Amino acid sequence: MQRIGFIGLGIMGRPMCHHLLKAGYPVTVYNRTKEKAEALAKEGAKTADSPATASADSEVIITIITDTPDVLEVILGDNGVIHGAKPGSVVIDMSTISPSATRSMAGRLSEKGIDMLDAPVSGGDTGARAGTLAIMVGGKKEVFQRCLPIFEVLGQSITHVGDHGMGQTVKLCNQILVSVTNLAVCEAILFAKKSGVDPGIMIEATQNGAAASWQLSNLGPKMIVRDFDPGFMINLQQKDLRLALESAREARLPVPGLGLVHQLYASNQAAGEGREGTQALIKSLERLAGFALD
Amino acid sequence: MQRIGFIGLGIMGRPMCHHLLKAGYPVTVYNRTKEKAEALAKEGAKTADSPATASADSEVIITIITDTPDVLEVILGDNGVIHGAKPGSVVIDMSTISPSATRSMAGRLSEKGIDMLDAPVSGGDTGARAGTLAIMVGGKKEVFQRCLPIFEVLGQSITHVGDHGMGQTVKLCNQILVSVTNLAVCEAILFAKKSGVDPGIMIEATQNGAAASWQLSNLGPKMIVRDFDPGFMINLQQKDLRLALESAREARLPVPGLGLVHQLYASNQAAGEGREGTQALIKSLERLAGFALD
Repeated sequence: MQRIGFIGLGIMGRPMCHHLLKAGYPVTVYNRTKEKAEALAKEGAKTADSPATASADSEVIITIITDTPDVLEVILGDNGVIHGAKPGSVVIDMSTISPSATRSMAGRLSEKGIDMLDAPVSGGDTGARAGTLAIMVGGKKEVFQRCLPIFEVLGQSITHVGDHGMGQTVKLCNQILVSVTNLAVCEAILFAKKSGVDPGIMIEATQNGAAASWQLSNLGPKMIVRDFDPGFMINLQQKDLRLALESAREARLPVPGLGLVHQLYASNQAAGEGREGTQALIKSLERLAGFALD
Repeated sequence: MQRIGFIGLGIMGRPMCHHLLKAGYPVTVYNRTKEKAEALAKEGAKTADSPATASADSEVIITIITDTPDVLEVILGDNGVIHGAKPGSVVIDMSTISPSATRSMAGRLSEKGIDMLDAPVSGGDTGARAGTLAIMVGGKKEVFQRCLPIFEVLGQSITHVGDHGMGQTVKLCNQILVSVTNLAVCEAILFAKKSGVDPGIMIEATQNGAAASWQLSNLGPKMIVRDFDPGFMINLQQKDLRLALESAREARLPVPGLGLVHQLYASNQAAGEGREGTQALIKSLERLAGFALD
């Protein structure tokens, strides 16, 4: 089994690292907050005091951190992965970050003989705990094949989608899809409610036809009962949508639906709802309308 | 079995009427274009020369016509249903029209002792031919129960959603959902393509998670292969979205996503694409971006 360096023990990384240890992989962990690394040490992980040292003795180095600058720092910065990893090792970045930054990192690592895969995930912390993440992987096909057993410990739907950065691109496509579909659900529920129709009955009558979506069947009922607990937090969604808008701008692609949802989520953030689930988008539309469902 | 008057033998009405005849219902048909009525006469229908005469000997009168003014004319106009239908009969309007016009028609009919159900359908002409329509019914519950056997000949998912007009409201919710979700699909496909990712692989990698939708799995692949044949025509979708926007305005509800899609479809209509399927929405976004997928 490949020796794994694991960097980033947040809400996603921690259960993922746990699954790898349970599957028998030797893992060396690094986390900025030391306590989180020590919790994993109790499960059998070695600890390291920097990304470089976590990478030194590892064949595969996994990073899962919040945003582009943090990943750049952890991989290319002082004491970064690039200063410890050996030629022939593979860096798998499972964060959701910029596709173009990913490509430039893959280039820098390649100069040192280090391979890279971008492998962002979908499914949230629930999926991380259950080991049922969807994983979208960019990079060389043969490197993907070599790392597939690791992905299979972490997720269920694992797809090699293309070259470096394309895992990130597909993840951003995923976020465009979920966000704009979420907007569809919010508007339909408010339209039903304002017209005197029970929104629950509306969902029941529409969710099995051409209007069907995961967002409708899963977030719709939460909106109706005012359950705004995060499956996925608005603040994190906004980070992903910002990345998507930046990539769209680089590609000179107008994305008016995405831009609209991003601005509506900005109203959620302005109202202090950034740590609520994405279904709280409906509150932003309620503010526009000057009324609330309940 | 109830004697049925059937008015409107267009792309939807004709196969629906055929199913009723096949199920053994005695049907009297009326259509503005006589030839269409004569085709049904060969299958055993009686023909009538006005909506009033088609209604005179019928316990249930079904109308399925394109837009609000046409339905108003057929039901309330000179020689309209209201002048032929007997007290105790039921008018079932299966067109997609204004919820508020529906409520006022139900009131007018009620003064003459005639019941009404609004029962718009979803599923297109494919669903009409297969007898698998989704039917969303507004009106009195007991009248709905009495007509249920008729609905069961025509469709599969049949839901009583509330009082007069609410079938129409739920149908418009359905159209909001399909349209804004369609926008999500278009933007994700163009984003993938512009970023160098195979859009088919993107769909494969995203369609089983939180991004899942009928629009993604069914219209996405058509967009990719440039198949713009209508499952549902943009011109008809625009009529429905106009009804939804009118109802939203009556309810003082801002629906920014719906408004955006309506304007993007206007670009399709301006380009002479109104008779193409709703998946041609992607062409409108391509025009914004100044490029095409193929």
